[in-house]
Amino acid sequence: MNKKLFGIGLASLVGLGFLTAASASDPKPEDAAKYRQSVYTIIGWNFKPIGAMVKGEIPFDAAAVARHAQYVELMSKAALEGFPKGSGPDAVKHTEAKPEIWTNWDKFETAMSNFEEEAAKLTEAAKGGDEGAIKAQFGKTAETCKACHKEFRKD
Amino acid sequence: MNKKLFGIGLASLVGLGFLTAASASDPKPEDAAKYRQSVYTIIGWNFKPIGAMVKGEIPFDAAAVARHAQYVELMSKAALEGFPKGSGPDAVKHTEAKPEIWTNWDKFETAMSNFEEEAAKLTEAAKGGDEGAIKAQFGKTAETCKACHKEFRKD
Repeated sequence: MNKKLFGIGLASLVGLGFLTAASASDPKPEDAAKYRQSVYTIIGWNFKPIGAMVKGEIPFDAAAVARHAQYVELMSKAALEGFPKGSGPDAVKHTEAKPEIWTNWDKFETAMSNFEEEAAKLTEAAKGGDEGAIKAQFGKTAETCKACHKEFRKD
Repeated sequence: MNKKLFGIGLASLVGLGFLTAASASDPKPEDAAKYRQSVYTIIGWNFKPIGAMVKGEIPFDAAAVARHAQYVELMSKAALEGFPKGSGPDAVKHTEAKPEIWTNWDKFETAMSNFEEEAAKLTEAAKGGDEGAIKAQFGKTAETCKACHKEFRKD
């Protein structure tokens, strides 16, 4: 597959320059980093208002929690593909990913799986609408973020 | 609500600095721009491999199309909240969003709705697994991207 030609051909077909950028198939290290950082931006965007409700800083809104939790869950499942081999700090200028992600991949994958599992449970709790259950599950989900960041992300 | 105190309080609760960043509730202009750019990065990441399959550049994989289309659809529904009033080029350093988004909001909203509708149909076509239907719907979805970019995004 000639990527350059493909990029040009598809862009001219639909007139969309962005299609020559990041890709899920055989991505460039910088594109992978941009993608995974985008995933975490969206996770934070949706996780924060749930936290604000859990803390009572903004009014509890079960429908909003369910919507935000759904995005956290879906993004949790989308994160791992943003860490292809060779997209660590040696290859990418702006990244907080530690080399340990790739030297200790199984542990990283497990940490990500833990996040996926707890995020899925947060969606379930959100659907149920019980504030207590949501609060407890928010805390459990946040702990999986914290655990992974501590070991695999530069501060 | 004291945002600063809330940020510190929640961060200390779970030890997660990112929770003081972007938020879906009353976001800062720069955070909104970062969020919407992340949404489009994820759309591109998922849209491109569908395009590659449609063009026959990589093998057709119905399950992969369905997964990617789902993310395009969900992100299409998440984009609009990334354009709060006051987050245009006057307030944000790096943005390709034109002021016309906010001066012609109804038209922008319609353009985004068109994208949402076609993206949802792409998910449906992907579930059906018919290559011809997927190809046709990919084209229609791409046209809604193109139409909105032409009018509301700087090149």
